[in-house]
Amino acid sequence: MSVPARTSEVIGILGGMGPAATADFYAKLVSITPGTSDQDHLRTVIWSDPTIPDRSEALLGDGPDPTPWLLDGGRVLREAGATVIAIPCNTAHAFVPHIAGHVGLPIVHMIGEVARHLTTLSPRIHTVGLLATAGTVRAGLYQEWLDRSGIRLLLPGAASQDQEVTTAVHAVKAGTHDDRTAALLARAAQRLTARGAQAVIAGCTEIPLGLRADAVDVPLVDPALILAQALVRRAGAAHTTG
Amino acid sequence: MSVPARTSEVIGILGGMGPAATADFYAKLVSITPGTSDQDHLRTVIWSDPTIPDRSEALLGDGPDPTPWLLDGGRVLREAGATVIAIPCNTAHAFVPHIAGHVGLPIVHMIGEVARHLTTLSPRIHTVGLLATAGTVRAGLYQEWLDRSGIRLLLPGAASQDQEVTTAVHAVKAGTHDDRTAALLARAAQRLTARGAQAVIAGCTEIPLGLRADAVDVPLVDPALILAQALVRRAGAAHTTG
Repeated sequence: MSVPARTSEVIGILGGMGPAATADFYAKLVSITPGTSDQDHLRTVIWSDPTIPDRSEALLGDGPDPTPWLLDGGRVLREAGATVIAIPCNTAHAFVPHIAGHVGLPIVHMIGEVARHLTTLSPRIHTVGLLATAGTVRAGLYQEWLDRSGIRLLLPGAASQDQEVTTAVHAVKAGTHDDRTAALLARAAQRLTARGAQAVIAGCTEIPLGLRADAVDVPLVDPALILAQALVRRAGAAHTTG
Repeated sequence: MSVPARTSEVIGILGGMGPAATADFYAKLVSITPGTSDQDHLRTVIWSDPTIPDRSEALLGDGPDPTPWLLDGGRVLREAGATVIAIPCNTAHAFVPHIAGHVGLPIVHMIGEVARHLTTLSPRIHTVGLLATAGTVRAGLYQEWLDRSGIRLLLPGAASQDQEVTTAVHAVKAGTHDDRTAALLARAAQRLTARGAQAVIAGCTEIPLGLRADAVDVPLVDPALILAQALVRRAGAAHTTG
């Protein structure tokens, strides 16, 4: 007797950017997958390569292009049997156009999924704030997708971006985040809500590790969770079609 | 300019048994790896196949042999570039002798590492209690390794094993664990310490997800953490040789 998989989908996670965010993403994927035993869960292969060069530095012209590392990771995932790729790193999505045609697998686009999700909220979101790396901001990743959805994007001012958001992201990556890190992120979020943001996107996978949702008085949108939900829907593992 | 890996080691995690324990194990591995940036972390490939048949059922004669699934996962990890395999599932170690000669990679033996760790504690541990699945208990996995180390093993009575430990492990696997689950595990642990256990092994990777270390008045040994520490030491990523 063998135990057949409930779905032929094998989730491929191109991770390591950073590694703690990858662990957090996989934990979220497991926690939202419906089921009562191990065997109800999705087969998943994770390539976690923390040596992939820093995405923000590349986008700011200060470091090597991570594209060859991402292509290599995509190849590992395909050869391991993955049928779809998810990349739980916002900034890495700047490089998706460079790899999408070469990895031989569909990529569920985290930022596209967040834009789609925002259009489903009620009351309707007209203005959203973004906490993200300088690279994600510079690359205009959310701008592009939200423009298509008719949602206005608010970005932190230069000082808040540098002294609050970037400082906090580096603290999470270094494993040194604490109450002060949370306070930096909460202050950056409050500046956005004060300017009219009806929701705030935690647009770097490290941010939900440093900032609690209840520290922000509008919905805090976690792209990693939205991506996990999209994968579960896609795999047909969801009990509802939500 | 490329960013060279600090070590040629690529950690292979044969997981999915269960998936939440795999996510937890990877989070532990990341959290104990010394470093201040993504690039200090270990390249890791994870094959998480929750469809692997239940290890306890197989050992109790109630289900299919998971060996073919484990061999297949080992092959995936080797082909993905792993240089060493870790299996964050205690019960699956009953099948390690069936796969060790076939996967073509060294396997860091979690249970062997726990036995080694126990011999290093001060004051010296003479008697240790075990909370584990019925399959792990039946297979005598800890018994075998602790015997070699001269440490006496205490097991829960049949009623405690069935009504407390097994019930709690199933609750964690179903994602329904709560304060009642924690109380079941704490009671089972207390029965062992009352009989003289100087430490308790959380000998199923689901147990640390349901039981807090401070609910037990002796050291609670987490085999997943011990395994993660062994991998970091092996990879030479540790700053100390502890």
